[in-house]
Amino acid sequence: MASPEIDALTQALARLPGLGPRSARRAVLHLLKRRETALAPLVRALQAVEASMATCHVCGNVDTRDPCGVCTDARRDPALLCVVEEVADLWALDRARLFPGRYHVLGGRLSALDGVRPEDLNIDGLVSRVAAGGVEEVVLAMNATLEGQTTMHYVAERLEGMGVRISQLAHGMPVGGELDYLDEGTLAQALRARRPVA
Amino acid sequence: MASPEIDALTQALARLPGLGPRSARRAVLHLLKRRETALAPLVRALQAVEASMATCHVCGNVDTRDPCGVCTDARRDPALLCVVEEVADLWALDRARLFPGRYHVLGGRLSALDGVRPEDLNIDGLVSRVAAGGVEEVVLAMNATLEGQTTMHYVAERLEGMGVRISQLAHGMPVGGELDYLDEGTLAQALRARRPVA
Repeated sequence: MASPEIDALTQALARLPGLGPRSARRAVLHLLKRRETALAPLVRALQAVEASMATCHVCGNVDTRDPCGVCTDARRDPALLCVVEEVADLWALDRARLFPGRYHVLGGRLSALDGVRPEDLNIDGLVSRVAAGGVEEVVLAMNATLEGQTTMHYVAERLEGMGVRISQLAHGMPVGGELDYLDEGTLAQALRARRPVA
Repeated sequence: MASPEIDALTQALARLPGLGPRSARRAVLHLLKRRETALAPLVRALQAVEASMATCHVCGNVDTRDPCGVCTDARRDPALLCVVEEVADLWALDRARLFPGRYHVLGGRLSALDGVRPEDLNIDGLVSRVAAGGVEEVVLAMNATLEGQTTMHYVAERLEGMGVRISQLAHGMPVGGELDYLDEGTLAQALRARRPVA
């Protein structure tokens, strides 16, 4: 019933996480009804991001500059490095401005099931950063899942003997929970009570 | 923590119905991770719709042409006219290809609470279409809500004595329900059993 252009937009929106075919249709109608106040700003915002997005070659964060805003922020302590699985996790921690240091995004977690091996993650980049000096503590902030913890122990092993303190997020995270879903209070507690990897 | 461009996109997405700040962030990360397969197609789809969208001056549908695809479809019976509150309702009925005629979108429903009066809806346009001749039956397909039914009776009154059959959707719609949320089976039944306005 709708034109091919409108159908194409509905399908593009329906592929976003959290939207299905029905909610995508409602979103399209919302946009069509509000051409100037919703459709145009969204087009502009997407174009701006598409034109400027970049993956930070230092930490793996996604930003509109490379190095990213976190890596170039002089107020952050370069001696503190927080390792996370995904960009979403970096954003979750940084949203609450809980961590005064910098980050390193692995780009996933070790998973036998999904065939993700150490060489598929940005672990070599982390080792190089630590080897380059200036880092005193590495906080391993993986998800409290089986795969997250496996990844944490693997990374901890790789960093052993490099002369840096290696810590992990305190328990306080619900077991099986994922970082991006935690409230800021729990995140703050888990960061504050971080302890050395045994 | 993210750049102004990414923040702006997150906010634009968070204003869509069905998305909140958190799901908007996840959608943005999804798009950032899939620049070529998700971000670029979405930008293209939105631009195409923005560039071509039009409100049909005949029926009020939103399409990429005016008159819209429904009004120009020669296979549709011009003697059958289905009146709906919103474009979403037209789409809901037409998605299942249940109705062989054409449509008229009122652009809302009468509502004392929201201050929507008859002159705020496209009722004069409907009366003109019927007065122009060629229409034999008008199906009033308003929502089964108090305001929808009030609107239906008002529109039925306006069309009285114009020499057209006036019918309404059969009960079969759950009371209090809204058209766009019904399954196609219920919609089909309600259309098939439509009856004259008493």
